[in-house]
Amino acid sequence: MANVLRNSAKFGFSGVLSQLSIHSRHGRECVSPCFSLQQRNNSTSPKIKVDLDSSTGVAVLRMQSPPVNSLSLDFLTEFCINLEKLEMDRSCRGLIITSTLSKVFSAGLDIMEMYGKSPERCGEFWKAVQEMWLKLYGSNMATIAAINGSSPAGGCLMSIGCDYRIMADNPRYSIGLNETQLGIVAPFWFKDTLVNTVGNRAAELSLELGLLYSAPDALKIGLVDQLVPEDQVLSTAQDTMSKWLAVPDHARQITKSMMRKQTIDKLLSNREADITNFVSFITKDSIQRSLRMYLEMLKSRKA
Amino acid sequence: MANVLRNSAKFGFSGVLSQLSIHSRHGRECVSPCFSLQQRNNSTSPKIKVDLDSSTGVAVLRMQSPPVNSLSLDFLTEFCINLEKLEMDRSCRGLIITSTLSKVFSAGLDIMEMYGKSPERCGEFWKAVQEMWLKLYGSNMATIAAINGSSPAGGCLMSIGCDYRIMADNPRYSIGLNETQLGIVAPFWFKDTLVNTVGNRAAELSLELGLLYSAPDALKIGLVDQLVPEDQVLSTAQDTMSKWLAVPDHARQITKSMMRKQTIDKLLSNREADITNFVSFITKDSIQRSLRMYLEMLKSRKA
Amino acid sequence: MANVLRNSAKFGFSGVLSQLSIHSRHGRECVSPCFSLQQRNNSTSPKIKVDLDSSTGVAVLRMQSPPVNSLSLDFLTEFCINLEKLEMDRSCRGLIITSTLSKVFSAGLDIMEMYGKSPERCGEFWKAVQEMWLKLYGSNMATIAAINGSSPAGGCLMSIGCDYRIMADNPRYSIGLNETQLGIVAPFWFKDTLVNTVGNRAAELSLELGLLYSAPDALKIGLVDQLVPEDQVLSTAQDTMSKWLAVPDHARQITKSMMRKQTIDKLLSNREADITNFVSFITKDSIQRSLRMYLEMLKSRKA
Repeated sequence: MANVLRNSAKFGFSGVLSQLSIHSRHGRECVSPCFSLQQRNNSTSPKIKVDLDSSTGVAVLRMQSPPVNSLSLDFLTEFCINLEKLEMDRSCRGLIITSTLSKVFSAGLDIMEMYGKSPERCGEFWKAVQEMWLKLYGSNMATIAAINGSSPAGGCLMSIGCDYRIMADNPRYSIGLNETQLGIVAPFWFKDTLVNTVGNRAAELSLELGLLYSAPDALKIGLVDQLVPEDQVLSTAQDTMSKWLAVPDHARQITKSMMRKQTIDKLLSNREADITNFVSFITKDSIQRSLRMYLEMLKSRKA
Repeated sequence: MANVLRNSAKFGFSGVLSQLSIHSRHGRECVSPCFSLQQRNNSTSPKIKVDLDSSTGVAVLRMQSPPVNSLSLDFLTEFCINLEKLEMDRSCRGLIITSTLSKVFSAGLDIMEMYGKSPERCGEFWKAVQEMWLKLYGSNMATIAAINGSSPAGGCLMSIGCDYRIMADNPRYSIGLNETQLGIVAPFWFKDTLVNTVGNRAAELSLELGLLYSAPDALKIGLVDQLVPEDQVLSTAQDTMSKWLAVPDHARQITKSMMRKQTIDKLLSNREADITNFVSFITKDSIQRSLRMYLEMLKSRKA
Repeated sequence: MANVLRNSAKFGFSGVLSQLSIHSRHGRECVSPCFSLQQRNNSTSPKIKVDLDSSTGVAVLRMQSPPVNSLSLDFLTEFCINLEKLEMDRSCRGLIITSTLSKVFSAGLDIMEMYGKSPERCGEFWKAVQEMWLKLYGSNMATIAAINGSSPAGGCLMSIGCDYRIMADNPRYSIGLNETQLGIVAPFWFKDTLVNTVGNRAAELSLELGLLYSAPDALKIGLVDQLVPEDQVLSTAQDTMSKWLAVPDHARQITKSMMRKQTIDKLLSNREADITNFVSFITKDSIQRSLRMYLEMLKSRKA
């Protein structure tokens, strides 16, 4: 696996870089197509804001970690704590996930959690990524992703972990598991979730090429369920949720479990091996060198 | 599981009831979206009529149990006996299933088989439901559902047990596995058959929400294969059957078995557990109370 | 299984024959919908021509065995040797498969390898068919089928063994696993590959009826990925390949393996049984008689 990024530098990287450039033309912020870098702030201000409407039983979870809602260890920990709280709260039956940032839902895993970190820390990070998906894909709540911006890689994983996806009808927003583009392989449970959502062939094509789909293309392959004008994403999610909550909870929950249990159990019974696998890959010298190059490129584009 | 119907009463039932009202506006008979109730008649007149054309090798099985072709134990027994006879008859190569009733193909499982019955009787009933599906999904005959009316729940199961589905092009007719809407969970083999027909994601959405699809929407997701004007459903089924019978029987049969055997074997090896599961659920006090409420509602609407 | 072809003669064969007639109206050559017969030539001229462009890393493999690129043992052996050479050549990263013949990509398995041959020879032949698929479906190269003509049965298997399919936009060209039409059953790994490509339901319908799809219909069900004018099939394949090669090789390869390994392993662990199965079927007296009839029919149509 040592020559992954070498190959990538040789053949694929320039393609990725030009794609990044195209992205950045549309806005100030840098939405990496896979990993994201955000300015460190050591503030303890919450990265996530949750509002539970006790009259409807619907919680809205807003991701508010500028510039791009990177999935750092802190972010994921906060996310999971909030999810667990809502899961335990019997008055909460539905969850809508959205972003307070303009143009981005979540740019995916935070590259800083993977660069220059100890194996232990990398393992801790990956466990948090698993936890986010396990909690979301297996949630007893009805879950809707209100995708009001781009949602590559980890952001896409979060979206397809929900029961339903409503995306802003903006062709400049994209979504997809594009890890392959950067020489990274989406792990089997990312793959399984994508296959469950768009079918085997669309998933194969999507993962082999690391495709990012514009919102209209994402709708075509079923990666999202519905497109609405940008200013109606949240209100449509609220309306849609009321239909989900008209279904008896218990029957819906058992049905959801029947549909998803096998996929969840597969990760549960391979969790440690999956962490080991990730850590041994990401801590390789060649990968770390490539991440440094990537980081420098991101920084220079910010300057 | 005790609070399934309580939840349902709290959140979902009114939605279902209003849906029922909408349905009943279109006709005299009450097509429940899931369970059906029909006037008891103790007549021994056959609930099913079979005509085998020995020149073509095609049998037409007409369900003629007014008002809504409810799948009672008697009905299912008669259905299975007829199916078995045709299966054994070497002159019969193709089977078309249709209804003599206007506006309804079959309204699904008969609620009276589940209300106030002994566990033994409930188990006998469920075994007959399994038998109907096992015989149909694994039939050596080419099977076509000529769906000339609404076909919720058990009616939908019967339809997707066939090789091909032709439905009347009438947006007021609906089809789907809508059990969840009533607080019931479609068992795993209903789910497997639906996944095999429309794919994992459409099945997930369909089952979590207990969706009934209008004929045009059913075509869109592949729940039926073809829509034709109402008066051409049967003749189109006959024409289509002649194409199926142009294929060498034995190759078609082995191919069908290759496609469906795994799904069938899964029920065969879990048959007793599936019966136990159904009986223990349906005989719960809370479920019986809810069924009584549901029955009273159906009766009052008839009055 | 003895009555497969008897049934076929009784019910299905005439349908197949008329279909053959329709096909032959469009051209000189005889593209059987399943098996193909070609004039024996004992020339040692290569059946396959490979051009590797070392500047792009893309090889074009041209099948040039008139009249219909039948998959004979010789053809398959030559095909596999070429594939293996390219696989070992580190300078080759992408493979495009196309045909030099007009109107046909490949007409599938050569009927002469199955008629009047010893069980040993039949087994050797079937092993070569397996090998072709195993090498192609599991190739580390990016593989594109540039389908510039009809591609029934074995030709379709070769196409769906690739990563991507571009077909000439000509409604007279067809593609599909149509074995059932001739009383033959596509083996499980043909079926698995088709299910992986078009999903379970489309595969079921396709295999039960032995359907051949016109190019536009093939696109609709996802059996091919793209249609282009006939004279642009190869150039489009070249353009598309450059996009595939912009993706880091190693990540794409691991991803491809993740998607396909289970299907490949299934054949690998049942390879001998699959050969035994084929040989015992094809050497039956009844099947051999039917093959003779079929051969005579093909010959008389050539005359």
